[in-house]
Amino acid sequence: MGAHAFQQEITSERELREILGTPSQRAADKVIDHIDKHCAALIGQSPFMVIASADAEGNIDVSPKGDPAGFVKVLDENTLVIPDRKGNKRGDTFSNILQSPKVALIFLTPGYQETLRVSGSARIVRDPALLKSLAHEGSVPLFATVVDVEKALFHCAKCIIRSGLWEHTGAEGVPNFGEILVDHADLDQTPEQVQQAIDESKMTSLY
Amino acid sequence: MGAHAFQQEITSERELREILGTPSQRAADKVIDHIDKHCAALIGQSPFMVIASADAEGNIDVSPKGDPAGFVKVLDENTLVIPDRKGNKRGDTFSNILQSPKVALIFLTPGYQETLRVSGSARIVRDPALLKSLAHEGSVPLFATVVDVEKALFHCAKCIIRSGLWEHTGAEGVPNFGEILVDHADLDQTPEQVQQAIDESKMTSLY
Repeated sequence: MGAHAFQQEITSERELREILGTPSQRAADKVIDHIDKHCAALIGQSPFMVIASADAEGNIDVSPKGDPAGFVKVLDENTLVIPDRKGNKRGDTFSNILQSPKVALIFLTPGYQETLRVSGSARIVRDPALLKSLAHEGSVPLFATVVDVEKALFHCAKCIIRSGLWEHTGAEGVPNFGEILVDHADLDQTPEQVQQAIDESKMTSLY
Repeated sequence: MGAHAFQQEITSERELREILGTPSQRAADKVIDHIDKHCAALIGQSPFMVIASADAEGNIDVSPKGDPAGFVKVLDENTLVIPDRKGNKRGDTFSNILQSPKVALIFLTPGYQETLRVSGSARIVRDPALLKSLAHEGSVPLFATVVDVEKALFHCAKCIIRSGLWEHTGAEGVPNFGEILVDHADLDQTPEQVQQAIDESKMTSLY
């Protein structure tokens, strides 16, 4: 408990669900366990990612990573590689990974309303061939963070719309979100039908 | 271990530090334990935030939140409040908080190169007065996430610069980062001196 006391604290999943309800089947099913072509397309277009990690006591930290689009490499369907660029040498994320390997990532793509959430386990490696493949204009990183992917899901557009985060719209090279959701949630609808439902939902249920 | 084998995996803090080195005193000292006026200014200008949380097994998740700038309220120096807007009812972050209260947040402000990282413990509350204070155009949220702040730090601009995330520059209402760092790291230099060093570093050590 913090200094402030509040009425009606929620302390159980049962209480939470009584008020929040449960997700639609579509929202429940949209988590996949690998990096498919849609995830890879977004990661390939994304110049900015936030990585969350935790220490042995469970204290969580988030750290931003940015580089030209596509800086996080999709090695295969289960493996992402993040180059370490020059920083302040705090190494907060690295210290955490050494204590507890679980991490979560979120990828942002300017102009694209959906974001991609990925979680899994991380390792810090200095494999020479791998590091060399991550060089930027001759500068070879000292470390690479390898993420063994366990979950991936696209997060819906509402938060980006409400925030007005992007001034422009229409990121190229990332598919229509209706198409992605049909694949990720195994939907029995066309991408167009799903996109129409999403677009309607965007306009009618932001608040 | 994932499917891929790599050479030279780093498995201890000692190995990490032998190669990475240690942070400057300034970088080590820049963490504060509360929300000061600079943090509050950035939070007040920020329309987008990512929250990281973990379940009882330590599996981490990140979730984006967006709303008009200033949607996260600074209740006092130790307390932030996040309104819950309509979503897909998955409630991933809520379920995690009920299992393990530790969270971390990162705030983004369009056009501003530094980001703000905050960590602490979270509670889910339905305090009627609090919820009412978070209404948007008459829509009162069902829940508020109260974060009892333990750490706050500004993350340097390099990742935003490398990413080119913002097309425009010059967020208003957030102070010059030199000024922030003098306060947060208790520096014995003027904000102008610190800003000059930062600006030089931005240009010379991105990779």
